[in-house]
Amino acid sequence: MNQRPQIETCLSPIFVNQYDWSGKTVVVIDVFRATSTICSAIGHGAEAVIPVSSVEECQEIGEKLGAVMAGERGGHVIEGLQMGNSPLEYTPEVIEGKTLVLTTTNGTRLMQLVKDAQEIVIGSFLNLNAVTEYLKLKNEDIILACSGWRDHANLEDTVFAGAVIYALKSDFECVDDSSFMAESLFNRVGDYTSLQDYLKKATHYHRLVNLGAEADLEYCCLYNLHPIVPVLLDGIIKDVKVR
Amino acid sequence: MNQRPQIETCLSPIFVNQYDWSGKTVVVIDVFRATSTICSAIGHGAEAVIPVSSVEECQEIGEKLGAVMAGERGGHVIEGLQMGNSPLEYTPEVIEGKTLVLTTTNGTRLMQLVKDAQEIVIGSFLNLNAVTEYLKLKNEDIILACSGWRDHANLEDTVFAGAVIYALKSDFECVDDSSFMAESLFNRVGDYTSLQDYLKKATHYHRLVNLGAEADLEYCCLYNLHPIVPVLLDGIIKDVKVR
Repeated sequence: MNQRPQIETCLSPIFVNQYDWSGKTVVVIDVFRATSTICSAIGHGAEAVIPVSSVEECQEIGEKLGAVMAGERGGHVIEGLQMGNSPLEYTPEVIEGKTLVLTTTNGTRLMQLVKDAQEIVIGSFLNLNAVTEYLKLKNEDIILACSGWRDHANLEDTVFAGAVIYALKSDFECVDDSSFMAESLFNRVGDYTSLQDYLKKATHYHRLVNLGAEADLEYCCLYNLHPIVPVLLDGIIKDVKVR
Repeated sequence: MNQRPQIETCLSPIFVNQYDWSGKTVVVIDVFRATSTICSAIGHGAEAVIPVSSVEECQEIGEKLGAVMAGERGGHVIEGLQMGNSPLEYTPEVIEGKTLVLTTTNGTRLMQLVKDAQEIVIGSFLNLNAVTEYLKLKNEDIILACSGWRDHANLEDTVFAGAVIYALKSDFECVDDSSFMAESLFNRVGDYTSLQDYLKKATHYHRLVNLGAEADLEYCCLYNLHPIVPVLLDGIIKDVKVR
């Protein structure tokens, strides 16, 4: 029997111990904004992104490598770092050919939590098609790992997981209710005037608007701006084509 | 300013420490099948239901009170107890005027976890209207607590939370993404021929069908069969009208 590979969806880092990550291809999702920022940086020519947990680590590694140091806590740029977690900051003029060391509230923490995975792929609406085409070619079991917000599930990451499932469902088998729910939620995009209009229902959308990040949110809701597949290997994220 | 009371949705017991339960009215939800079974028993004249965590406790309290002892683990009736977790077992002939001591895998465990709540209400599709009318009258902050399956979120409990939100949203304010997602999922019922047809998408539906419980599932998907509001107080569940 030709068994299709499986898809599971982890709605929040709080569920991390409920999954067997080893041998799985994991898509880490933090739409607002870490994984969108990583896609923007690599899409605009960054050589690599190094995700780190702490500000101290960010400074230490950044200074050693002469890299751009960036980070965010609770949506704010961190004092002592050069840049923040806004995907719009990472224009080619700023980032091309450089390495970015990045620490964020939810996204980079999740990458540490799923380190047993066989491969970790960075997903956002900015590179949705590239990621799903890559996963189809790999044809292996997948866990879609949502960063959420302070260990709660959130709308934007769940809807992105649903978009991946929608693209893959004829070739993969969804084995949990979370995947069905994610795809159902993605299927509601058409009830709104745009993806951005839909994701305005997310509490984190309004939190970031209040921090002045509305232009970032618009950017994070663009489909397929960057045809890249950033992959985390040995602590360093690079586009899979340059690995 | 006339502030509306708030609704939050706890998608799985794994999130229990993320919420402040004190002072809240909590609806405990385990559609397949514990809260449906409790509604069936009380709707058919049981004087009270005592939810307990362990089989030993079930036997001890049951024997002391001369009550009906019932329980389920992993969908199966437990050896040494008289009855299981099938709502269809609890006909008036069997349960009228009696007390039921019940232990189940997910639902009764959750009732223990949320014991700090101001009031705990038992919710299922069988008593949906009665619960939402009661909550409207109370007009206080609510947490909808889904039992899930082995600490994962599940479809049936999330959809029920969404049904409650749908009924209450003009009088209450949803403050988290989980509530928005739950209501969005409930709003998809219309895409299916029936609630039962929709909930066939739940993995637990098929688990229970494989255990021979298909008639139970049909019953659990009936709306408003029992106009009751079972409330847990001092460890005992009774209809609010007889409190």
